Amino acid sequence: MAQEEGQNGGAEKTVVEVSFKSVKPQLFVEAPKATDAIQFYKAAFGAVETCRSTQPKRKADQELPHIVSAVLQLAGSTFIVADLSDDSSSTKGGGAGFAMCLETEDLKAAVAKAVAAGAVSESEIVEVEGACCCAERVTKVKDPYGFVWQFCSPSNKCGTLISVKFSAYLD
Amino acid sequence: MAQEEGQNGGAEKTVVEVSFKSVKPQLFVEAPKATDAIQFYKAAFGAVETCRSTQPKRKADQELPHIVSAVLQLAGSTFIVADLSDDSSSTKGGGAGFAMCLETEDLKAAVAKAVAAGAVSESEIVEVEGACCCAERVTKVKDPYGFVWQFCSPSNKCGTLISVKFSAYLD
Repeated sequence: MAQEEGQNGGAEKTVVEVSFKSVKPQLFVEAPKATDAIQFYKAAFGAVETCRSTQPKRKADQELPHIVSAVLQLAGSTFIVADLSDDSSSTKGGGAGFAMCLETEDLKAAVAKAVAAGAVSESEIVEVEGACCCAERVTKVKDPYGFVWQFCSPSNKCGTLISVKFSAYLD
Repeated sequence: MAQEEGQNGGAEKTVVEVSFKSVKPQLFVEAPKATDAIQFYKAAFGAVETCRSTQPKRKADQELPHIVSAVLQLAGSTFIVADLSDDSSSTKGGGAGFAMCLETEDLKAAVAKAVAAGAVSESEIVEVEGACCCAERVTKVKDPYGFVWQFCSPSNKCGTLISVKFSAYLD
């Protein structure tokens, strides 16, 4: 007999309640061009950078730090720019990739509800410090129409190590 | 002698001032699946549809109207879902395509500033009733990183013909 995995041990079907704090488009560019792309969005559209998370340099010859995520404000909305890495939550898209980031405290419930509606789980829940500038745990699904939705759960430690408010970082 | 086109007749370089009222990600799906995609985003994420613009059916055997744009609210933000048509402002992306829509009153200035920063103009200004649910004139550029930015100028006639508030349309 096949049994469904039930991490909460419940056999009854329950209505999954999920709330999201924010939704942000995330634009992935080929590394290490995120720095240039951010400058372009400032010059072209007047975007304002409010936060940047970077990864420590892995090689001495890398001049630019890998941008895990940079948060830009534009016309009252927020979007994220990131260098594409192997584990980036993206489909191939305009630029190097694109995902919609949904912030929630209950990643499992968010995935369960999306999968019940027809999405396909694309990854386990993983820890990515600096994702969406202040997320510690992330996972993703692909919807039936080909778009990737990344669920992010913010960490209380947000901003302490590699994620810094941009006002204190540059300018 | 090559002369630059100057529709305002000015030879002096001027600083282009452009203001944007909103920025919204637009997800293009293969027609005619936008209707299904909207249902999915409601079921999976709790998105709320607030506006839908449709094109009149062109063929008698088309069961679903072509969705020019549908506006969805989610977690305090707005995104747009549209059926992909030949003239959709998109790069190939996740799903059938993706663009970032910027609403502005001065399309020419917006394009000029973006091109000056390094973008490439992708189309003339065209009239697309129902684009972004209430835009009459649209144009687009591609940024140096491959993303399409669609500039939309809302029409005063918005909502009178094919664009309807969703509350009066369904549900």
